[in-house]
Amino acid sequence: MATGETFGVRLAGAIEARGPLCVGLDPSAAVLADWGQPDTAEGARYLALTTIEAVAETAAAVKAQVAFFERFASAGYAALERVVEVAREAGVLLIADAKRGDIGSTNEGYAQAWAGEGSALRADAVTLHPYLGVASLAPLLAAARASGTGALVLAATSNPEGRRVQEALYEGRSVEAGVCAAVAGLNAVEGWGSVGVVVGATRAPLGFDLAGLGGPVLVPGVGAQGAGPREVAAVTAGCARASVLASVSRALLAAGPSRRALRRAAERWRDDLTELLA
Amino acid sequence: MATGETFGVRLAGAIEARGPLCVGLDPSAAVLADWGQPDTAEGARYLALTTIEAVAETAAAVKAQVAFFERFASAGYAALERVVEVAREAGVLLIADAKRGDIGSTNEGYAQAWAGEGSALRADAVTLHPYLGVASLAPLLAAARASGTGALVLAATSNPEGRRVQEALYEGRSVEAGVCAAVAGLNAVEGWGSVGVVVGATRAPLGFDLAGLGGPVLVPGVGAQGAGPREVAAVTAGCARASVLASVSRALLAAGPSRRALRRAAERWRDDLTELLA
Repeated sequence: MATGETFGVRLAGAIEARGPLCVGLDPSAAVLADWGQPDTAEGARYLALTTIEAVAETAAAVKAQVAFFERFASAGYAALERVVEVAREAGVLLIADAKRGDIGSTNEGYAQAWAGEGSALRADAVTLHPYLGVASLAPLLAAARASGTGALVLAATSNPEGRRVQEALYEGRSVEAGVCAAVAGLNAVEGWGSVGVVVGATRAPLGFDLAGLGGPVLVPGVGAQGAGPREVAAVTAGCARASVLASVSRALLAAGPSRRALRRAAERWRDDLTELLA
Repeated sequence: MATGETFGVRLAGAIEARGPLCVGLDPSAAVLADWGQPDTAEGARYLALTTIEAVAETAAAVKAQVAFFERFASAGYAALERVVEVAREAGVLLIADAKRGDIGSTNEGYAQAWAGEGSALRADAVTLHPYLGVASLAPLLAAARASGTGALVLAATSNPEGRRVQEALYEGRSVEAGVCAAVAGLNAVEGWGSVGVVVGATRAPLGFDLAGLGGPVLVPGVGAQGAGPREVAAVTAGCARASVLASVSRALLAAGPSRRALRRAAERWRDDLTELLA
């Protein structure tokens, strides 16, 4: 959690200390069944806390997929609140993969939830949707900046269906390149390096350059979605090593519920990623 | 809530019976202060339940802005669960303005939350983000269809910052027109008329035609954002009258907390909208 340092600084420290692995906390019905856990908020909590305990010394961060908690309504959010606490105690950064985004005044609500002082959901960073424009996220980004919370804006997502939006052209530039340029602009002006982007590992080669982003790059889609460490390296070519975080979810959770097996799987992913991102 | 009928059918019935008004339930810090309510989950619950009680016979639907509940974490979601119950008891349709959207498998989590049988958050319809492509929403749309829940996909939003994404061109068509065409295609194939779009009233004239959509059109941005009934009529020209729902939030909540003043304000908005949309 925020200690006066920005998310960008905390993330760089965590990557230097423990490598570029981010472990996805995805308590879907399928994963809970594999783990022999009930498909309930309690099952989701168990999966997340067990995984954090297993990987806290191996991963720079964990990423909670909010959809898989939200399906249990308020009970799921109570479980997520506990995940926020436990990640903090374990000293691992927590990314809330919430993909939020609305018009400006409504974003103040999301800012209070995910970046607010004293919020039970306050994470180290939160993922955001740019369909209403990166500029519409300003109130959320200002609140995040004030509390040291990072913001990771969707740019080029791993799934093929997104191309019709993300590769559309505005003033001669693709939407996804425009999102990255807007984020680079924020980092250049604000100088805090805590606004980043989400780029799917399956999207290499990107067709535009992330090297000038000046902030974190979260790369999901590693493992189950068919991309490996090589694709992470390709998609983040030119980025500072301490700004790249590769997220593995299902391919790693499949090792559970044994903590020992989870830890070993995390170590293998960390080593493979570290080698190729060096 | 679903009773075997689709959302499109229930919405058309509600509009025929009570007119095209949707009242936004937006318990922001500013509105709660105006109402003399505490800035807590309890305050948010009070605002929403009072408003539902006041407008249930005047409005076709209410729209809960999820961000303003989410800011109170699990307590806010517990309040929202109560709002879902009370709207159902009052016989007014409830739209969850959640703006969710992710890759396909993750959307199953959101589907369970907002459209799942037995979910405490199950609404009559939920708003969705298309940044990952309308096609990525398929699991959510299938679940919504199965339970009679509507889905309202963001197309052309009211705020100016969204133009760089929504007016970008893919294969010669704007992203926002492409979203509407994809939704029209779903309604043509599925024939259920419960997938709709969100189009801001401030966006008139649209530059493309919504007449072939075959599903609901939610028009927010009325009142506080500077557009009136005339703009709602312009932006939905050619659409079936029983498919157009105009959402008023702050401009109407300003009449509270008096139930009588809220009801009168709702009646005025309903009458103005009905006249221009006739």
